Amino acid sequence: MTTSSEPRSARTGRLRMSPESRREQLLDLGTRLLSTRTLEEISIEVLAEEAGISRGLLYHYFGNKQEFHLAVVRRAVEDLVAITAPRDIDDPIEQLAVSIGAYLDYVVENYTGYVSLVRAAAGGNEELRAIYDQGRKALTDRIFEVTGPEGLEALGLSDSPTIRLLVNGWAAMLEVVIIDWVDDPRGIAREDLLERLARALPAIVLS
Amino acid sequence: MTTSSEPRSARTGRLRMSPESRREQLLDLGTRLLSTRTLEEISIEVLAEEAGISRGLLYHYFGNKQEFHLAVVRRAVEDLVAITAPRDIDDPIEQLAVSIGAYLDYVVENYTGYVSLVRAAAGGNEELRAIYDQGRKALTDRIFEVTGPEGLEALGLSDSPTIRLLVNGWAAMLEVVIIDWVDDPRGIAREDLLERLARALPAIVLS
Repeated sequence: MTTSSEPRSARTGRLRMSPESRREQLLDLGTRLLSTRTLEEISIEVLAEEAGISRGLLYHYFGNKQEFHLAVVRRAVEDLVAITAPRDIDDPIEQLAVSIGAYLDYVVENYTGYVSLVRAAAGGNEELRAIYDQGRKALTDRIFEVTGPEGLEALGLSDSPTIRLLVNGWAAMLEVVIIDWVDDPRGIAREDLLERLARALPAIVLS
Repeated sequence: MTTSSEPRSARTGRLRMSPESRREQLLDLGTRLLSTRTLEEISIEVLAEEAGISRGLLYHYFGNKQEFHLAVVRRAVEDLVAITAPRDIDDPIEQLAVSIGAYLDYVVENYTGYVSLVRAAAGGNEELRAIYDQGRKALTDRIFEVTGPEGLEALGLSDSPTIRLLVNGWAAMLEVVIIDWVDDPRGIAREDLLERLARALPAIVLS
């Protein structure tokens, strides 16, 4: 086992962080690596090199590669849920468009990792898919749980199995349209796209 | 390499089929196996057993497992495109609902294989994804190419990069909603769902 020669501050624990904080900090770094790398490309070896700490310590924190990947994806999903949280905006469509915009910006900034994560979750990996599905559910549940101007009533919607089915479909549409748009944004300006995607929710549900 | 001992009729070519017809017939069988098996579960060995012919002959027709899987998926996508072809129905929403209904019935009848195919295509397999994307494109292109009552103008739509982006998103919504509904159809009746999914297209595009 080799130890990196730099930066030493991370190894010597100058900040005397708790193991939990240290693990969180390492997860932050792992998640940031997703911006330019696929999930498969973020190994414990890569994280060890970037963090300047030993692989042995990382295996201590994360167990194995699969556990490490699940922890990174869980963190990425938490980040997505956090950055898309409803703001204090009166108009419900504008409110929704702002949240979709935060989602879109995340995809732009973390494109390589995001696409690899969506593919891994949509593919055969059951545990990854479970985390991903929970994330989508957290994002769509918010539409049903939040009251006030950004809530369901403001959009003219009510809660039912059919509406939940359609809202989940709308979320799937968002994911595909956002990836397509980031691949080729020439057809429509960002703000116009966000408004259309926001308006699509009541349009689908009330049509 | 072993040769199967039964049934001999398939090997002796009693029908004197051309190699192309024989390959097509084997692909038909491979595609039918998708109704109750995942793509991964349909190996050349399984097909050999079901068709009663030697694995050697199947390798001759299909090359290897990956090529065989690609051929099966290509055929399944062709089937989907064929069964959802526009019928001679005047009302454009009803026309669309009938096509979506054919799609939904295919998913019901081929659930295990369909879900495994979607996951394999959405996951890391580039060649499968290319076939799948072509299939979705063939299905959505039809909306732009068909003229008359089932065409674009009848729905009040025009062709533009933005509309194509949204129509592709609508197709992604369909896929997710249909799988969700087949998993748990209690919330909404089939006909109501089909009409809502059909109405969602102009609703999304015109909203």
